[in-house]
Amino acid sequence: MKIRVKAIYRHLRQPVDAIVLSNSTEPHIDMSFFYATGLTDGLFEGCTAWLFPDGRCDIVTSALEEEAAKRSGLPLHVFRNRDERLAAMRALVRGVRRIGINASELTHKAYEEFRKLAPRARFVDVSDAIMRARLVKDGAEVELIRTACGIASRSFEQILPFIAPGRTESAVAAELVYTMQKNGATGAAFRTIVGAGPNSAEPHYTAGPREVQRGDLIVIDFGALFKMYHSDVTRTVVVGGASPEQREMYDTVRRAQDAAMAKLRPGTKGKSVDAAARRLIDATKYKGRFIHGLGHSIGLATHDGGGLNSVSDIVLRPGMVFTNEPGVYVPGVGGVRIEDDVLITKDGSEVLSTAPRDLLVVG
Amino acid sequence: MKIRVKAIYRHLRQPVDAIVLSNSTEPHIDMSFFYATGLTDGLFEGCTAWLFPDGRCDIVTSALEEEAAKRSGLPLHVFRNRDERLAAMRALVRGVRRIGINASELTHKAYEEFRKLAPRARFVDVSDAIMRARLVKDGAEVELIRTACGIASRSFEQILPFIAPGRTESAVAAELVYTMQKNGATGAAFRTIVGAGPNSAEPHYTAGPREVQRGDLIVIDFGALFKMYHSDVTRTVVVGGASPEQREMYDTVRRAQDAAMAKLRPGTKGKSVDAAARRLIDATKYKGRFIHGLGHSIGLATHDGGGLNSVSDIVLRPGMVFTNEPGVYVPGVGGVRIEDDVLITKDGSEVLSTAPRDLLVVG
Repeated sequence: MKIRVKAIYRHLRQPVDAIVLSNSTEPHIDMSFFYATGLTDGLFEGCTAWLFPDGRCDIVTSALEEEAAKRSGLPLHVFRNRDERLAAMRALVRGVRRIGINASELTHKAYEEFRKLAPRARFVDVSDAIMRARLVKDGAEVELIRTACGIASRSFEQILPFIAPGRTESAVAAELVYTMQKNGATGAAFRTIVGAGPNSAEPHYTAGPREVQRGDLIVIDFGALFKMYHSDVTRTVVVGGASPEQREMYDTVRRAQDAAMAKLRPGTKGKSVDAAARRLIDATKYKGRFIHGLGHSIGLATHDGGGLNSVSDIVLRPGMVFTNEPGVYVPGVGGVRIEDDVLITKDGSEVLSTAPRDLLVVG
Repeated sequence: MKIRVKAIYRHLRQPVDAIVLSNSTEPHIDMSFFYATGLTDGLFEGCTAWLFPDGRCDIVTSALEEEAAKRSGLPLHVFRNRDERLAAMRALVRGVRRIGINASELTHKAYEEFRKLAPRARFVDVSDAIMRARLVKDGAEVELIRTACGIASRSFEQILPFIAPGRTESAVAAELVYTMQKNGATGAAFRTIVGAGPNSAEPHYTAGPREVQRGDLIVIDFGALFKMYHSDVTRTVVVGGASPEQREMYDTVRRAQDAAMAKLRPGTKGKSVDAAARRLIDATKYKGRFIHGLGHSIGLATHDGGGLNSVSDIVLRPGMVFTNEPGVYVPGVGGVRIEDDVLITKDGSEVLSTAPRDLLVVG
């Protein structure tokens, strides 16, 4: 993974002699550890990766995960207990004057541990460089995300017949996750959202005991984890048949997504992609009902750094992968969100999520 | 949740005027936020909880999660954007001289943000007090863990007929997670481990394409998430029938677990519980094959603070919940682990995980 380590160093604003990526206890794992090492399995609590300017990457790993760590092909320093762990890190830090840290994924406690380990070193937050490197996916990463998108899309289509009056939101979510796992997913990328009826108007609702009813809009926001990579897709379906109001709401969101889609190409700024969708919605009776950002980068995390929102200065480049997910929410009534995962290509973009985007009638 | 806030303050080694618990982006969420607020749903990225010595707890929440936050019944400060978020926190921090932080679940970046917000304040790491408070569960927490244990145990028994030659490890894991969700789990507490044959000898293996074979030992390590609380159970089954060697391995681990079980009562030190199991295994031909700690506290995380291992000075108290999970691993051949979740009670302990502990023959 020399090329990834070098990509991080290329984005630095000030030089460092080494960068350390440190995992604490779950959930406080630095996903950049997996970016830099190329590992796509294992947990690696308490482990660290040490990145050097020449592209070298050493792993300090617990003996419990030595077998998994070997798959990286990288130099390993194996520890069996706390003392050996500290000794391995002390040896790596020797002579290093400027140490880069990923402050946005490092616990403050781990930072204090490093300060004690290298009391004379200067610590530099390089999280911005790491985020910039991670934003642009390489070929291997794109293929993992593509697989994660394919599994999610296919699984959604397969469970459509399951969604019917009387099924609970939770049952639909369970069925979808199960189908993704049977289709090869490592797991769900995040807690699946199934919000039916009025619950569809709450963007961060998850899934509960409500039974699906005729006339409900159902917002289903789901993603597959494949190895360590995430997909993130939303479809809104309607039970029985759509009212003119529901159809209008759906068409508005659909057109907003199309407007944003046309902007997803190299050179565009994040905020102008968001604006394209927002302008369209705000020119309708749903003005002000699109209450979140348009999208976000996906990869080793569901929110993988950059966002597409009204203040985003990010400039799109080939290899970036974003969600495009406008929505309209009417409290107490219902909501619509349509979300796809889009790879920026040399000439424009490619939609990686393949589930149908028309309003589907289920039940 | 006044009582929980006060419990944290009672464990402080030096006084502070306020404690802030801060969530970054997933997965960097401070689970103590949910402990202090009593919330058992929602994500609360970018949100903070502010705990005061009188037991008061204020929440600074994004408008997106206002509805979920309301369920806490606590004072809310709702923000719609970054400026409003900073303004709300600035108002809360005014006049606070000593601020407690949870350094083990706070990102270093968030810490730096607080330092800018309150440049004259002194920051005190109170993570130890938080961990000590969280170690002792109150009645509501015990009931959530009990439910999580019940769901996991019942689901395991239900999927036993599914485990048969030809099934892949991944399929067994998917079936188990699906069954837990159908039985009311919010999700899986962690990545389910299904290690068959030689894979059962790798304690941190997850699940892969290997098909279950006659004669395999299968280590199945699984847990249900219920609301935000975790269970963590392991059963080892054998396919077709057990060889004398497999039975001996199983009986050794079973007796080690019983030896530790007898030690799980108020007043015992963590290391002497670990020693009871380790001594037993090390007196057999499996000496040195028990290569991890005996157990760990569970609650809002699968590894919820204190551990039961050879260096653990923790003194058991009623309300603590630990896993008791000895194992024996013979590389290339196979392994056995038996894990139960145990509540320390006034008089001794209660095993919350109810799945049968005898060696089960499947297939």
